[in-house]
Amino acid sequence: MPPSKFAKLPHLACYAVISSSQRTKTDNGYAEAAERMEELIATMPGYLGAESVRGADGFGITVAYFDTEENILAWRNQAEHADARRRGREEWYSHFEVRIAKVERAYGFSR
Amino acid sequence: MPPSKFAKLPHLACYAVISSSQRTKTDNGYAEAAERMEELIATMPGYLGAESVRGADGFGITVAYFDTEENILAWRNQAEHADARRRGREEWYSHFEVRIAKVERAYGFSR
Repeated sequence: MPPSKFAKLPHLACYAVISSSQRTKTDNGYAEAAERMEELIATMPGYLGAESVRGADGFGITVAYFDTEENILAWRNQAEHADARRRGREEWYSHFEVRIAKVERAYGFSR
Repeated sequence: MPPSKFAKLPHLACYAVISSSQRTKTDNGYAEAAERMEELIATMPGYLGAESVRGADGFGITVAYFDTEENILAWRNQAEHADARRRGREEWYSHFEVRIAKVERAYGFSR
């Protein structure tokens, strides 16, 4: 795990993949798969970082950042990820939304 | 509270305000202010919905959707919200990042 939960974006010209999901009650390999996907996404070309949180009620948001839409598509189609996405639809999530958005500006603070 | 935690976006031509934050330990009016901001944002012109989650470790993500950048700016500058943002910087958050992004495509499922 990284020391900070915040994505450090090297530049602003990037895309956000905003995924929100409601988990089902079943685990059935979810925790292991989620950990594996976290490892795998970090190896993808153009991956810039991600932020993720899930609440006690099973509702979660993950925002992953990539440099280009082409690299987002490559991640979507990566074989192991595609298999995990199928299992997500069938088993792990009751509702799932993805929005792809082009980052236009950013600001923040840390103290 | 709405029955679903998912934002129902009426159309794709919209902007996402992605806020990630790490809460400090202090409450000091936070819960009350957060509830008030949830009410207030819903009255803003061009507000389309939001999704929000905070984990047990205090890290949270909120994604609010607006129709235009002008309306995002109006929300940013709304007096009561500006005051809450100041208190956030001073008291409630140790780290805060905001990214404004133009939604380009979306997909999902619900079962």
